[in-house]
Amino acid sequence: MPTFSDEFFMREALRLAAEAGEQGEIPVGAVVVYQQKIIGRGFNQTIALNDPTAHAEMIAITTATNFIGSRYLNECTLYVTLEPCVMCAGACFWAMLQKIVYGASDEKNGCGKVGSALFHPKTEVVSGVIAEESSALLKSFFKKLRK
Amino acid sequence: MPTFSDEFFMREALRLAAEAGEQGEIPVGAVVVYQQKIIGRGFNQTIALNDPTAHAEMIAITTATNFIGSRYLNECTLYVTLEPCVMCAGACFWAMLQKIVYGASDEKNGCGKVGSALFHPKTEVVSGVIAEESSALLKSFFKKLRK
Repeated sequence: MPTFSDEFFMREALRLAAEAGEQGEIPVGAVVVYQQKIIGRGFNQTIALNDPTAHAEMIAITTATNFIGSRYLNECTLYVTLEPCVMCAGACFWAMLQKIVYGASDEKNGCGKVGSALFHPKTEVVSGVIAEESSALLKSFFKKLRK
Repeated sequence: MPTFSDEFFMREALRLAAEAGEQGEIPVGAVVVYQQKIIGRGFNQTIALNDPTAHAEMIAITTATNFIGSRYLNECTLYVTLEPCVMCAGACFWAMLQKIVYGASDEKNGCGKVGSALFHPKTEVVSGVIAEESSALLKSFFKKLRK
């Protein structure tokens, strides 16, 4: 795969998702990229942190804005393995991300279930990048959980 | 006013909102209440923390879940001076709050602008508590800012 492609950065988000799964968290991972560098990483930590807001995207965004020294990420791209939920879509709106790339769709809790678009109108949104692997990781996690 | 009424706790949220305003942040404040005790406080700190997710509700919820030791607040009430935005409504959904009480409506960024209800179906929502004072605080803040 070409260096610095969407697939390249999504691979790192997927690695983080797997790390979440190993820790017993729903396996979702995210990275924020600025000028081809990863400036924020996050994976789902709601159980470990006792915090319903500790989704992968939230942690990656907070880390990135802290790094940049601004609360806006209008020159950054967020890569996340699963379609953002309503909360995370709202956070993406406030961060005014340049671009959002997500993997698998989330029919149950994805922001797409809400009628109107929740992302910032200036944000470009790309979906379906390495979606099958992200989806397989989630399915395998929930299958183990049910056992 | 009776002790432990909605007005009683909203007064504390308003005090926090004023504190935000004094620090140059948009004046919004929030508290989370469990068994008539405040277990989480927050005010808007997006500028101070360089963090677009640092809304009053998010900070109050994270503090409360940390205190409770669970990521669910299904026996708690959130008091917030302004109608929650999409992000905060999403956080309230995940926290499964028993009740949300807010003050002023937010026509521009309130979650009500989104077609379908974003809160958890089990969450009771009350609006308009000490709304005029919350609204006046915000108007006065933006008036000063424009000068």
